Amino acid sequence: MEKVHIAVSQAYDVLIDRDLLAQAKQLLTPHVQNKKVLVVSDRNVEAAGYVSKLVEELTSVAEQVTVEVLPTGEAQKSMANVTRLLSRLAELNFSRTDCLVALGGGVIGDLVGFVAGIYLRGVDFIQIPTTLLSAIDSSVGGKTAVDLPEGKNLAGVFHQPRLVLCDVSLFESLPSAVFEDGCSELIKYGMIMNPILLKGLLERPAALKASDADLVEIVKICVELKASVVLEDEFDQGLRQLLNYGHTLGHALEQVSGYQISHGRGVATGMLVFLKIAVRQGRLAPEAVEKFARLLHTYHLLPERYNYSTELLQAAMLKDKKRRSQTITIVLPSEFGRCELKELPIEIFMNVFEEEWLAYGQATS
Amino acid sequence: MEKVHIAVSQAYDVLIDRDLLAQAKQLLTPHVQNKKVLVVSDRNVEAAGYVSKLVEELTSVAEQVTVEVLPTGEAQKSMANVTRLLSRLAELNFSRTDCLVALGGGVIGDLVGFVAGIYLRGVDFIQIPTTLLSAIDSSVGGKTAVDLPEGKNLAGVFHQPRLVLCDVSLFESLPSAVFEDGCSELIKYGMIMNPILLKGLLERPAALKASDADLVEIVKICVELKASVVLEDEFDQGLRQLLNYGHTLGHALEQVSGYQISHGRGVATGMLVFLKIAVRQGRLAPEAVEKFARLLHTYHLLPERYNYSTELLQAAMLKDKKRRSQTITIVLPSEFGRCELKELPIEIFMNVFEEEWLAYGQATS
Ligand SMILES: NC(=O)c1ccc[n+]([C@@H]2O[C@H](COP(=O)([O-])OP(=O)(O)OC[C@H]3O[C@@H](n4cnc5c(N)ncnc54)[C@H](O)[C@@H]3O)[C@@H](O)[C@H]2O)c1
Ligand SMILES: NC(=O)c1ccc[n+]([C@@H]2O[C@H](COP(=O)([O-])OP(=O)(O)OC[C@H]3O[C@@H](n4cnc5c(N)ncnc54)[C@H](O)[C@@H]3O)[C@@H](O)[C@H]2O)c1
Ligand SMILES: [Zn+2]
Ligand SMILES: [Zn+2]
Repeated sequence: MEKVHIAVSQAYDVLIDRDLLAQAKQLLTPHVQNKKVLVVSDRNVEAAGYVSKLVEELTSVAEQVTVEVLPTGEAQKSMANVTRLLSRLAELNFSRTDCLVALGGGVIGDLVGFVAGIYLRGVDFIQIPTTLLSAIDSSVGGKTAVDLPEGKNLAGVFHQPRLVLCDVSLFESLPSAVFEDGCSELIKYGMIMNPILLKGLLERPAALKASDADLVEIVKICVELKASVVLEDEFDQGLRQLLNYGHTLGHALEQVSGYQISHGRGVATGMLVFLKIAVRQGRLAPEAVEKFARLLHTYHLLPERYNYSTELLQAAMLKDKKRRSQTITIVLPSEFGRCELKELPIEIFMNVFEEEWLAYGQATS
Repeated sequence: MEKVHIAVSQAYDVLIDRDLLAQAKQLLTPHVQNKKVLVVSDRNVEAAGYVSKLVEELTSVAEQVTVEVLPTGEAQKSMANVTRLLSRLAELNFSRTDCLVALGGGVIGDLVGFVAGIYLRGVDFIQIPTTLLSAIDSSVGGKTAVDLPEGKNLAGVFHQPRLVLCDVSLFESLPSAVFEDGCSELIKYGMIMNPILLKGLLERPAALKASDADLVEIVKICVELKASVVLEDEFDQGLRQLLNYGHTLGHALEQVSGYQISHGRGVATGMLVFLKIAVRQGRLAPEAVEKFARLLHTYHLLPERYNYSTELLQAAMLKDKKRRSQTITIVLPSEFGRCELKELPIEIFMNVFEEEWLAYGQATS
């Protein structure tokens, strides 16, 4: 078993291995013994059998185990669910020493983390990520949030879990598109700060699968990378922006497509286009584009071509930034496996973006 | 003008004086200049003319001023209002650098502080307390909360304001019962940790009024006392419990009366009964009871007699504690103007409480 210690203000461990759910009783005992536990999950995760497995593990050690299974999808990250879950905790007479468990992907993790962060001004929670994305991204860093009708992640708190139990075997039941979306973030870690990880991904004989032996090690590397960034910048003041590589455009694509384009696929396109901007600026050699596009294609992360207009995307990107200044901070590769924050005048950014976007189809088709 | 600097993790000042609202433009400029501002208030505060006054002050300095006036009463501290205000902020396109202003009593302060604490994971807010209670209690310490149908203050965060503007002239429009409720907390500060304040209150020729010249000084002393406790114990681990003097029984009385008994009056009875318990335990001289009861009567804080049964109150008090152990921690006077945390076996506490409660009428009638 791999263990990553996250030394934020309230430190905790991320345990990573195969078949950890089967050892949940033992591993979670320090956090749930003689406590009330509310397990929150979603219907797909329940259908995969993980909810009943976890409850079986916890029943003999916790004082009481209650389960809430929500429908699936981003729409569950709502204030209505926050209100409902808070009342559920109050009905169950949860006290400051009781514990929530988020068993699911980023949607369940973000929602449950937020609820745990505000009930009685903060109670314990444990994350058991069931998607690759939640394992390497949303379960590390303490950001929690729900959406408002007006936009994504607009309400939330920083609240660290007590423990993250990352059982990579759980990813075997993921639809391949969901697993691939997680791979997009994995490639992102390689590109922003780990050339060796990136090289390893490029040189694999076939695409990474949930059953691959080295997935534990790869997840561990990503958790460590995210943790290193988070430790430098727990409350999101600057460095964390590197993690947004590809995301400015990615979010814009998600939005203009009415969320038909998935997060991982939006980010993949964003990473490629911003790599091309970096190449155009002479920051790295043109070969990088072809190599990177091939990697993204391996994971089916790039479409043939998008039909969204430059204007629409630029408007969405600027809105996303909520800026007031005349410059825009973007994340650009400086090497193959290294990114930097770069401040550009908005005008210049707009022009290069426009040219790259109009030429975009050629690199990816 | 008095200034109390609160050196919590995110430090801020409490400015205390008469007629500060008329100087709001100048005093708030550093926090609102070129920013969007949302002022949240309630209908009574609006009727007193303070909302329009504040808006007039801010309009020329802020980028945009929007006002939300809510109905009055504890019921406004709801998740429904949290959701509504969050959406209001999102509609207004509030960013991380914009600012909320809570213009009202503890209800508005608690609600707005919570919303500010979770919108975009925390934005600035300013408190302008309009009740004595909110000036000396709820606006200091960073606790924010709303109620759930299941109970009071069950959801919240710790979130410090950027500034507290405490204009004691605003209290002149308070109904006398609301002003007196604030005096109950003021007497509490005297009894738990400031014999001189307590003596000063006892020796006044008449009850304190909102127009009294020394109110600024008295509010300042209370803010300093609360701040000193909060600084020792920002996240509510122990010392803050002193502030709960009289509150265990006070909350029970509020509850069993269906909130017909006000907070200040419940607390006043609680303080007196727990003083009597302390006297019975030989912790201080019996004369204290008569003297303290007289003070509370001056502010109309004690009823002739309550008709609630010991059993009902004990049940409510124990529920309030959410305990698991066999002991209960209570706040008891050790001198006239000094309290301590005292852990008693529940059995013993129950017995003395019962005897004191049954004898209660005699001391107060
Ligand atoms: N807090 C953060 O720092 C952070 C970072 C990145 C993303 N996020 C958030 O994470 C969310 C996306 O996370 P996600 O991609 O995990 O989405 P998700 O939770 O919706 O999971 C994706 C899909 O997979 C299903 N699923 C989950 N686990 C499964 C399993 N083991 N087997 C079969 N199906 C399973 C889910 O039901 C869902 O349909 C977004 O809301 C995003 O905002 C948060
Ligand atoms: N956060 C904390 O640390 C903390 C501490 C103590 C109490 N509280 C909370 O504070 C709340 C009670 O505060 P409160 O007593 O100020 O109640 P409140 O805000 O309801 O005000 C009491 C009444 O006075 C009215 N009012 C307010 N200012 C006025 C003015 N200047 N002129 C005329 N009328 C005015 C209000 O409309 C209301 O009807 C409770 O919800 C309690 O839980 C919080
Ligand atoms: Zn992402
Ligand atoms: Zn009180």
